[in-house]
Amino acid sequence: MSVGTDSHPIGVFDSGVGGLTVLKALVRRFPEEGFIYLGDTARVPYGAKSARTVERYTLQVASYLVKREVKALVVACNTASALGLAALRQRVTIPVQGVIQPGCRMAARLSRGGLIGVIGTRTTVASGAYPHTLHFLDPALRVTSLACPLFVPLVEEDWVSHAAARMIVEETLRPLVAASVDTLILGCTHYPLLKEVIAGVMGEKVALVDSAEAVAEEMASHLVKGIVRPAPPGSQGRLTYLVTDVADRFQEVATRFLDGVPVSHVEMIDL
Amino acid sequence: MSVGTDSHPIGVFDSGVGGLTVLKALVRRFPEEGFIYLGDTARVPYGAKSARTVERYTLQVASYLVKREVKALVVACNTASALGLAALRQRVTIPVQGVIQPGCRMAARLSRGGLIGVIGTRTTVASGAYPHTLHFLDPALRVTSLACPLFVPLVEEDWVSHAAARMIVEETLRPLVAASVDTLILGCTHYPLLKEVIAGVMGEKVALVDSAEAVAEEMASHLVKGIVRPAPPGSQGRLTYLVTDVADRFQEVATRFLDGVPVSHVEMIDL
Repeated sequence: MSVGTDSHPIGVFDSGVGGLTVLKALVRRFPEEGFIYLGDTARVPYGAKSARTVERYTLQVASYLVKREVKALVVACNTASALGLAALRQRVTIPVQGVIQPGCRMAARLSRGGLIGVIGTRTTVASGAYPHTLHFLDPALRVTSLACPLFVPLVEEDWVSHAAARMIVEETLRPLVAASVDTLILGCTHYPLLKEVIAGVMGEKVALVDSAEAVAEEMASHLVKGIVRPAPPGSQGRLTYLVTDVADRFQEVATRFLDGVPVSHVEMIDL
Repeated sequence: MSVGTDSHPIGVFDSGVGGLTVLKALVRRFPEEGFIYLGDTARVPYGAKSARTVERYTLQVASYLVKREVKALVVACNTASALGLAALRQRVTIPVQGVIQPGCRMAARLSRGGLIGVIGTRTTVASGAYPHTLHFLDPALRVTSLACPLFVPLVEEDWVSHAAARMIVEETLRPLVAASVDTLILGCTHYPLLKEVIAGVMGEKVALVDSAEAVAEEMASHLVKGIVRPAPPGSQGRLTYLVTDVADRFQEVATRFLDGVPVSHVEMIDL
């Protein structure tokens, strides 16, 4: 291995399948890097659990991935990013990348009128992580946050193209339409799969921020700056999937998240 | 304490709030008994997890309740009953009561044409526990099982009276309407809260079986026979609520499950 490169994989962690939208963006951009994706499918979802529990689970998963010698860790789950990142950075020495800061930066850049909406799980919204980060970037932004607890099951169960889903999205997002937001952060990795419905309800003038792309951009900057050392030139990245509960349903749903690319060789682990 | 009575509480276990429909039926029928309700809210829901994981969690919860000296254990969760009961009965010496057998017995009694439908979580349906038990009672019964994964979130998020819920219930239950079932087992403790919508879709000729009442009947027979020794005459039963994640949201949703009776003094435990 030449100095300055590192052939170890990058760890990507999510409570379940949602983080695959982030993995997809990373793999597309860095095909030479290896990735270990870990979905904590035995304890999914995190979005309705308490801050304390989410933090505890996040630390457990991270310490497992550190043992598997990842060179950097992407916390793809918004809820885990909102609650676990601070504690995580105190415990591990490798670079840790969450999804909230990249999403906020992109939203602040896209917003024309400074009226930003954020949708996420109950726990992410209760944490206040998004408005806190947005106001740190620009204190003049006006932020409206909204928990959308039914969106994850609608995506997981593949109801996104049903009329009922449209009704639920419409009724849920009403406060954001009323607030006339010009930019909407999809603050949960499941929501990009509902993007069309959400766009239909919010109208075409509202910019939708999908953190997956924002995270890939951030990682590119880490690799350029050497904060994360890139894979040796000419490498062919390897993908490893780990889950904490059996793989059958993970494989089925994961394929949908990866636009039809089948997921094979899923390893079950005990945390 | 006189011989033949036992002032220890009865343990009632569920993955979350759903088992409160069973607790409610038990308390109404046995006001002199004490109950410890344990909702494994940190790891809810069980209904999409694997058999192995559900069994493991069920054994952990049961061994905790045994340490709290319950005199009997009601597994109120259908998924835990379907997957964990056999292992549980090998490990603990106190009487263990699940929800599946009582529900099946009631359904077999109510059915006029022997065409029985069962709805439940994905994991409950995959286990085959309901058809297996029904065929044990009467091999001539024709059973149609159906997983309804969106019903739990609709109940938890209180969308039961929305038009979208009616659409989802209608579309999901179509195979059972087509199968002309005459009796439908609500094989998940959340479903009684959707009873009106389900009844509207299935039609008034279809008998709906709510296991909560069936379990209370079964417990009455245990207490009469002395399989479970009753509380001393004149006792005033005490209710204790335990959860594995913070209590706020549990209290809010629990109140809905208990028809507005507020739930106070919830204790958080670590399993």
